[in-house]
Amino acid sequence: MSAEFKIGVLGAGTVGSAFAGLLQERASEVQSLTGRTPVLCGVLTRDKGSFPEILAEAELIVELIGGIEPAREYVLRSLTAGKHVVSANKQLLSQHGEELFEAASEHGAQLRYEAAVAGVVPVIRVLSESLAATRIERIHGIVNGTTNFILTEMERGASYEQALAEAQRQGYAEADPSDDVSGRDAAAKMAILARLAFGAPVRLDQVPYEGIEHLQSDDLRYARELGLGLKLIGTAERLNGGLSVRVHPAFLYAGHPLASVSGPFNAVTVESDAITEITMSGPGAGGVQTASAVLGDLVSVMLTPAAKIPPATSFELLGDVRSAFYIHMEVADRPGVLGTVAHLLGDVGASIKSVAQWGLGDNARLVMVIHPLEESRLRSALARIAELDFLHSTPRAIRVIEEEFV
Amino acid sequence: MSAEFKIGVLGAGTVGSAFAGLLQERASEVQSLTGRTPVLCGVLTRDKGSFPEILAEAELIVELIGGIEPAREYVLRSLTAGKHVVSANKQLLSQHGEELFEAASEHGAQLRYEAAVAGVVPVIRVLSESLAATRIERIHGIVNGTTNFILTEMERGASYEQALAEAQRQGYAEADPSDDVSGRDAAAKMAILARLAFGAPVRLDQVPYEGIEHLQSDDLRYARELGLGLKLIGTAERLNGGLSVRVHPAFLYAGHPLASVSGPFNAVTVESDAITEITMSGPGAGGVQTASAVLGDLVSVMLTPAAKIPPATSFELLGDVRSAFYIHMEVADRPGVLGTVAHLLGDVGASIKSVAQWGLGDNARLVMVIHPLEESRLRSALARIAELDFLHSTPRAIRVIEEEFV
Repeated sequence: MSAEFKIGVLGAGTVGSAFAGLLQERASEVQSLTGRTPVLCGVLTRDKGSFPEILAEAELIVELIGGIEPAREYVLRSLTAGKHVVSANKQLLSQHGEELFEAASEHGAQLRYEAAVAGVVPVIRVLSESLAATRIERIHGIVNGTTNFILTEMERGASYEQALAEAQRQGYAEADPSDDVSGRDAAAKMAILARLAFGAPVRLDQVPYEGIEHLQSDDLRYARELGLGLKLIGTAERLNGGLSVRVHPAFLYAGHPLASVSGPFNAVTVESDAITEITMSGPGAGGVQTASAVLGDLVSVMLTPAAKIPPATSFELLGDVRSAFYIHMEVADRPGVLGTVAHLLGDVGASIKSVAQWGLGDNARLVMVIHPLEESRLRSALARIAELDFLHSTPRAIRVIEEEFV
Repeated sequence: MSAEFKIGVLGAGTVGSAFAGLLQERASEVQSLTGRTPVLCGVLTRDKGSFPEILAEAELIVELIGGIEPAREYVLRSLTAGKHVVSANKQLLSQHGEELFEAASEHGAQLRYEAAVAGVVPVIRVLSESLAATRIERIHGIVNGTTNFILTEMERGASYEQALAEAQRQGYAEADPSDDVSGRDAAAKMAILARLAFGAPVRLDQVPYEGIEHLQSDDLRYARELGLGLKLIGTAERLNGGLSVRVHPAFLYAGHPLASVSGPFNAVTVESDAITEITMSGPGAGGVQTASAVLGDLVSVMLTPAAKIPPATSFELLGDVRSAFYIHMEVADRPGVLGTVAHLLGDVGASIKSVAQWGLGDNARLVMVIHPLEESRLRSALARIAELDFLHSTPRAIRVIEEEFV
């Protein structure tokens, strides 16, 4: 009989029970890979179990509680005791990552967190191992399955409200969906990816994000007509010697590897001169998928000595980023409107790439695509445009990701 | 000054020089990740260098010679001497993998080969680490960039000959393209993936393959009209308690993750109950991309103790696999033709899903899609159909991959 490897689990929700089942089912494979048999030595729930007892017995703690406290305290105490930790907790890692990495490094413990970003899509492993020595230029990701499901439904003609209701019905959105639809969940994941890809200790509160609540079926319809995708995109990229990490909806040209990712899937594209680009995609969530990512981390902990965590590097975080924009306006259908709008855009240096106008009785829809310029400039022009008396609604601006790798 | 990690390189082609450049450029990152500075201690070319001297000095050998001999001898001698090996050699791994794995295992050396399959796409790492304990059901892959480039050109209207010439002009195809266009290169890669995913010691000569030489622009045109992709697909899957590993062109439904992979890209989809599916894609070749995959392996060797290679498992290799088929026939445009063809198909149990016929003067094109049945049955019906006097050319059959994960 081979030696045992004792595992304590914190949290007993969907993922926790899926993990317990998967561990039992795959124990003999883990044994043949690692030479030791994984054994659950304790599960901490709200009502049952003692953290100190589990900690004393386990070699590895799987943290599936979520949120900041008490997860932070338990993870820190585990690492400080030299116990390895596998966590699926994006909030914790995006807000207290440095503290945890330091504790792991100081006490020779491993901290692995594949399940915290993009579910079973192995982006954490690929960034931290395959691409560890690669100079990465940019990451684009669809890292929230709820919003991608909603946008896919809207592309098929549903309104935002209908799509959200359907996501809730199918279990892809929670009763309070604000963390997902606001872009905040994606922002936490992009902070984690930026730390890995660039060594930059970016915290969630430093990532500007914009959600999908203001998108309308029309925007999706135009996207389809123009052969574009419209997705909630997280970006982390080197820019002018600094770094920009942000989340916002964006139009993608049809050939972009993320443009065809639909439904509750996640996908991440990593770009660098040396690799050109790699895209990874798969289901973004689900109990058994998340449990599978945790199991992969468990095997790695059992096989690997503590990997060195590269020291954090400081970067200037950029807020005002150049981008192409699509602008949607509802205006009165009368002479001079287009000229006035074009004039105000010209004042801030915005150059118009294409323009289309549809009449709708007294109203017209005016849709423009603007060549790349700083967001702050566009916003100041839009503020002036919004004051014009022929505007029937606030102008909407959505970023456009243009073709670069051909 | 930190300790050195000495690397010997065998072969000095495009990848070799790209690797030397990348190693110099990224040496300080490798040092900060691993604590040791990587140093090239020797390069073996046709004219220069001594293998025994390089072997004596190096801790790790990078094998970029390609082909079987002398690569096999050098890799075996390196592993037997306890030296780690990073190889990009798909021929060697697909024909002599077991011998090499055994030598590595016996002498405590690591053998890594990310660059041998799908270039920089990290499929080897993900299968051998993230998914090591996962029960994988199926792998589908576009693992040959040359043929995918040719098919993409044909989709845009080029003939096979034009597309091949363009691939040669752009450096994606060699002067003698037969290894690529016959499917043999893809078959070698699928043998390697099958070993990793299922533990099955599959050799190249056990993998049936079919290439793209017989495809015609018409087939691509029909695919586009039907909203399907037509790709050269490698498959390795569990089937009836055995295993099927094979390579052939196949139609893919539009939503399949491989359907949108175009140009010289590679992509691999891994399916399992626990993960649903993961797809990874990126450029399939190129000197600097391959060098980047080698660098990733180098860092892993420096960080990791020798991973255990799971013992080989024996599987029955299946030859006759069920599949849906598209059939293309050129026939005389006269009554009774469709009935005769349908009758012969019915005799072998083939059930027709859809049929279309176009008149072309005295000729007609008859295109059918057949519900899944064993390939041997379809072939026997096609052999009888080919003998009919109203057939104007040999019928062509192409497999169809139907939607499964919805």
